[in-house]
Amino acid sequence: MKDKFFNYIHELQDSITSQLEAIDGKAKFQEDVWKRPEGGGGRTRVIENGNIFEKGGVNISGVHGTLPDSMQTYFGVKDADFFACGLSLVLHPKNPMVPTVHANWRYFEMYDKEGNIVDQWFGGGQDLTPYYVFEDDAKHFHQTCKTACDKHNPEFYPKYKARCDAYFYNSHRNEGRGIGGLFFDYCKETDEMSMQNWYDFVTEVGNSFLDAYVPIVEKRKDLEYTKTQRNWQEIRRGRYVEFNLVHDKGTLFGLKTNGRIESILMSLPPHVQWVYDHHPEAGSEEEKLIKILQNPINWV
Amino acid sequence: MKDKFFNYIHELQDSITSQLEAIDGKAKFQEDVWKRPEGGGGRTRVIENGNIFEKGGVNISGVHGTLPDSMQTYFGVKDADFFACGLSLVLHPKNPMVPTVHANWRYFEMYDKEGNIVDQWFGGGQDLTPYYVFEDDAKHFHQTCKTACDKHNPEFYPKYKARCDAYFYNSHRNEGRGIGGLFFDYCKETDEMSMQNWYDFVTEVGNSFLDAYVPIVEKRKDLEYTKTQRNWQEIRRGRYVEFNLVHDKGTLFGLKTNGRIESILMSLPPHVQWVYDHHPEAGSEEEKLIKILQNPINWV
Repeated sequence: MKDKFFNYIHELQDSITSQLEAIDGKAKFQEDVWKRPEGGGGRTRVIENGNIFEKGGVNISGVHGTLPDSMQTYFGVKDADFFACGLSLVLHPKNPMVPTVHANWRYFEMYDKEGNIVDQWFGGGQDLTPYYVFEDDAKHFHQTCKTACDKHNPEFYPKYKARCDAYFYNSHRNEGRGIGGLFFDYCKETDEMSMQNWYDFVTEVGNSFLDAYVPIVEKRKDLEYTKTQRNWQEIRRGRYVEFNLVHDKGTLFGLKTNGRIESILMSLPPHVQWVYDHHPEAGSEEEKLIKILQNPINWV
Repeated sequence: MKDKFFNYIHELQDSITSQLEAIDGKAKFQEDVWKRPEGGGGRTRVIENGNIFEKGGVNISGVHGTLPDSMQTYFGVKDADFFACGLSLVLHPKNPMVPTVHANWRYFEMYDKEGNIVDQWFGGGQDLTPYYVFEDDAKHFHQTCKTACDKHNPEFYPKYKARCDAYFYNSHRNEGRGIGGLFFDYCKETDEMSMQNWYDFVTEVGNSFLDAYVPIVEKRKDLEYTKTQRNWQEIRRGRYVEFNLVHDKGTLFGLKTNGRIESILMSLPPHVQWVYDHHPEAGSEEEKLIKILQNPINWV
């Protein structure tokens, strides 16, 4: 399973980065291959200053060894080894009419000191962060998520949609980071779902990513925008930074356990603003976004 | 003591904001008076888009009531009430040749349920974050800190200078946030220092702030700079954001305990950049800064 999924994310990284380069038409992903001193490493691919993508990363990593102390405490285990691999991506488009997108698919195995697997699970999801809400785009993104889920279990979409809204939440602002999508974790073997079933589900979602996002990019990339709309995008990007640095468990875990900093922080947007006590005008498109972020919508 | 220090920070806020406005010559501080539902409140003063100050805040607050659960756990007490007041300031100049500065002076009292003071202490400090290092400026800032300290105890400056370097440290980057200054906390009554002695010391430091910072502003505010130098400033401001959102105890405490968000986050810079894996050129002024941040200097 571990080799199968590790191969899968290598191929998925290739297919996502080549298609994003084709859409961008200008910038190419720069690749950095890195090694983790304690075991494993990764292949980071970052795109900057493109026609469409101002900054983005599509990274894979596969790390293994002794489970770090902080994670042993977190999982309540002792003397455990682990293997973890996954693909993480974040894309920050230049045009504020094109949403930012984030996705992650990952697999984790834990071993006892004899090397027996004592636990294993999948996790991941994909979510959209628009600066201006186009209902058609929100519906398309969520419908693509739902279609992928429904092939495996009709309960998955509502469950993982709700978890996504709950997780990507800036509690100190009382608003969601974006308009959500899917978030799932600790997908373990049950009577209904074997690990192979979970593999089929997670790869189904991974394969749906470009279908979920690319049509939105194509539809909005040539829309005109004003300096004021660009400022709004940069202010909202500040909220993205706040979520990733204050609340996101993956980012904080990476920063506090000596992960590869530049691969972790590729998620941060290129140009960002903080304006004191900023509030959009009543009745504006900007205010419409805030209201949606405060009260998540069931788009499909 | 509590009334005396509370009055002091009111007067200090007035004197700092009026002198900063005079130096800026264009922007005025906007005042927001706010109330804390559980007791107390504050007076936030923010300046934006000035000739010199692109963004900054000089805030005072005085809050009281039942000590929040998270703080009871932190201090290992039960059924405690508290009073806390302080002045916090951060100034982000437009010109990258002028350093960012931060300062804070605060006083805390803890009470049992009968209203008796069971603990009380002062804390605070001031520290400088340059984008380009002028040795004269660093020496002037630290000398002013040292002079204020030496009037009270010759051991204070080296001790609180070292604490400042240790506290304002981006461990995930292996570098200091800036070139330091002073940081002290839990300044409690001892055989040598009464609370009145601590009051005299803390207000001495508070009164030294404008002497420490303003001459640097005056000296550098009209220096010319390039777009590349401005980009460097915005990239370095990203590190400032990382410290404040990932490591700063005060910020995180405020965000997680329902503080006034806009007053807490006034510390974040106005325009910020994140560039993937950015490294300054060997031998450049930018690289010189990084080397100093990695190995703090004894400036005086």
